Amino acid sequence: MSFAKVLLCLDTDTQPSVFDAVVAVDAGVDQLLRHGGVEPDDVRNLVYGAMFTRGPADLNNTAVFIGGTDVATGEELLAGVRKCFVEPMRVSVMLDSNGANTTAAAAVLSAKKHVPLSGTNVTVLAATGSVGRRVVRLLAREGAMVCVASRQVERALQVCDEVRKVVPNAKLVPWMTDDEESVGEALVVATVVIAAGAPAVELLPDKRRRQCDPLKVAIDLNAMPPSGLGGIQPQDKAVERDGQICYGAIGVGGTKMKLHKAALRRLFEANDLVLDAEEIYELGKTI
Amino acid sequence: MSFAKVLLCLDTDTQPSVFDAVVAVDAGVDQLLRHGGVEPDDVRNLVYGAMFTRGPADLNNTAVFIGGTDVATGEELLAGVRKCFVEPMRVSVMLDSNGANTTAAAAVLSAKKHVPLSGTNVTVLAATGSVGRRVVRLLAREGAMVCVASRQVERALQVCDEVRKVVPNAKLVPWMTDDEESVGEALVVATVVIAAGAPAVELLPDKRRRQCDPLKVAIDLNAMPPSGLGGIQPQDKAVERDGQICYGAIGVGGTKMKLHKAALRRLFEANDLVLDAEEIYELGKTI
Amino acid sequence: MSFAKVLLCLDTDTQPSVFDAVVAVDAGVDQLLRHGGVEPDDVRNLVYGAMFTRGPADLNNTAVFIGGTDVATGEELLAGVRKCFVEPMRVSVMLDSNGANTTAAAAVLSAKKHVPLSGTNVTVLAATGSVGRRVVRLLAREGAMVCVASRQVERALQVCDEVRKVVPNAKLVPWMTDDEESVGEALVVATVVIAAGAPAVELLPDKRRRQCDPLKVAIDLNAMPPSGLGGIQPQDKAVERDGQICYGAIGVGGTKMKLHKAALRRLFEANDLVLDAEEIYELGKTI
Repeated sequence: MSFAKVLLCLDTDTQPSVFDAVVAVDAGVDQLLRHGGVEPDDVRNLVYGAMFTRGPADLNNTAVFIGGTDVATGEELLAGVRKCFVEPMRVSVMLDSNGANTTAAAAVLSAKKHVPLSGTNVTVLAATGSVGRRVVRLLAREGAMVCVASRQVERALQVCDEVRKVVPNAKLVPWMTDDEESVGEALVVATVVIAAGAPAVELLPDKRRRQCDPLKVAIDLNAMPPSGLGGIQPQDKAVERDGQICYGAIGVGGTKMKLHKAALRRLFEANDLVLDAEEIYELGKTI
Repeated sequence: MSFAKVLLCLDTDTQPSVFDAVVAVDAGVDQLLRHGGVEPDDVRNLVYGAMFTRGPADLNNTAVFIGGTDVATGEELLAGVRKCFVEPMRVSVMLDSNGANTTAAAAVLSAKKHVPLSGTNVTVLAATGSVGRRVVRLLAREGAMVCVASRQVERALQVCDEVRKVVPNAKLVPWMTDDEESVGEALVVATVVIAAGAPAVELLPDKRRRQCDPLKVAIDLNAMPPSGLGGIQPQDKAVERDGQICYGAIGVGGTKMKLHKAALRRLFEANDLVLDAEEIYELGKTI
Repeated sequence: MSFAKVLLCLDTDTQPSVFDAVVAVDAGVDQLLRHGGVEPDDVRNLVYGAMFTRGPADLNNTAVFIGGTDVATGEELLAGVRKCFVEPMRVSVMLDSNGANTTAAAAVLSAKKHVPLSGTNVTVLAATGSVGRRVVRLLAREGAMVCVASRQVERALQVCDEVRKVVPNAKLVPWMTDDEESVGEALVVATVVIAAGAPAVELLPDKRRRQCDPLKVAIDLNAMPPSGLGGIQPQDKAVERDGQICYGAIGVGGTKMKLHKAALRRLFEANDLVLDAEEIYELGKTI
């Protein structure tokens, strides 16, 4: 008997993500079991249903995807899913709440195409959001010297502490960036900048960006004008501007989409995978 | 790569329509993404998920269906869907809340099989409900002289005003029908009558219907006995009774179902269609 | 035209069962229409959607499954579904809230493999839960002499009354079992015991079980240690222990799963089946 590929989608939003559903269909999932408004207490019963319906040798055909706009609750759901497993009964699971994991992985992979990351100075603007924190984590693991910039230095410090817990030898500098001047200072020695700010908020004016002499790669993840990094267009994909290799949100988005589909396909190759930011990033290196 | 046909179903009822789902499956949809309790504020995020997951050349494989018993909110959802589009990124969409569009189109198409509509006197009973209003609109576009009958003349006037906004040269007469006598008067010169009343409410007794001399076609859309037009059976499909060609709700229902499926199939032939009453009616002329 | 197999899942829990969904996929259902938080008032509209979308000759391709943890409300939903039917328009329906029907049927079928049930003394421990009550019903129909044991004798009496309404010649003895001693007494003449108690509650210690001389078959439906019947392991499937043929929850579970799938497949062979405990049990005899 051949088994249909079943993806259990646990979404923290009342209306579960249509984006994630269509991507799953296009990645070859046969049956979507979509659940909206999922709370941590719901996880056990739902995941047991995924675990105890097929034999252990066939459980690679069942997987779990965690999505929704609330990344913190998504992380709680993932912790809940892991607690359900009773070896050898388990299923593979992927976390991509708010697209944060695939976006962060795609951004860092885009930078890595152009410069080696180990020992390189990288500044992450708006580093304390769900995407920014993951970008810092991935860069720290690659051995980059990361300037962790935020309007609130306490939050930057908190991200540094968090990341050091999982990457003990991380090289991180918290930085307060509350005006154009301080953003510029955060970029004085940076070879790479990744801006993970809110939609339609300019973090660095075009003129100022052009003055950043050591800057080789500039990546902006904001799709709504004005750009986070002045002068970068959302469609930019390795476009050279003023001697800098530039990426906009849509330019990174193509890689993000490929990663998302590849990670979904990977879920069905084994029944013991946990695909969080790091695993998705590593997978991205192979495609 | 070939794309699965994905239909995003936005339903205003808490439990989304099973009727609409089964019809979609039978019309060839591969993947249903069903959402219940959808409110206007939910639309953008859901429709963006449908728009931004496939390239513009493949978006004819993704479409939106709006259903549920609340037709007014369904119309709001349709307005919301149209606002989402950013050319060339858009998907086709069909509105059929409460089956009102397909029912109205099927009723008018049934009449049109037997008499030309342009210049013909047609009386619509219970013309101010969601089906009745659409029947009036479609008849007005065909150039019929429409007697818009309702128990409350203010509501009949309101429907006339509404229809004139979209069909400026509409020939409409509002009519108050609050008893057998006034319903009879509304039919004095009618060649066609379409009764769009509530279930199990008789609008015109059998005896009175038989006295309507110029009447050639009598269509009743109420499936629950007693009939809206006395003497007509729900199963009637072009049955001659007393020199009148008669249709009951189930008789019209066969055409309605064909239209519903044809419209769903049409959705997947292009990515820029908006199928409201008029478009569904025009489609019906071709099948 | 060939029709996709559509299963309308009416679940009383807010998040509909993933277990039931995966089993349905593996039983060959093409399209699941899953509804959570279903209340008795929702049934008519949902089931009408299943009934009035395909012709009577094709309605064997549409079926209804009722699930969820609340068995009493599941029974109400089933009653509501039956009321919807208007011959020849109807669809087949299966009730398996909380897995109670398939579990009870699998337990009784397991016993029947080893001893004839007619005239045999069978003790059901924790007989007043949703599984226990069904076990009693099935045994009564087979002509067994059933000792209906419960901590509260009033509840045991109530189950006896209930079962006599549907099996008038049932041979039932209510029994109060509020300590080890009284449980032992309930087993003095039993050839078979079926324990349908709560998870992780021991009803009969190992030592005491071994002292039950006439006991030939011991079946425990509790999967969480400690076992309901001391000394039985969840994986036991016709394992001989101390001269008794023993089954644990997982041992019975294999048969339960086969029954669940067989019943789902049966649903699509006709459009007029109602699969409750008895019909599922009879189906089990043929596989």
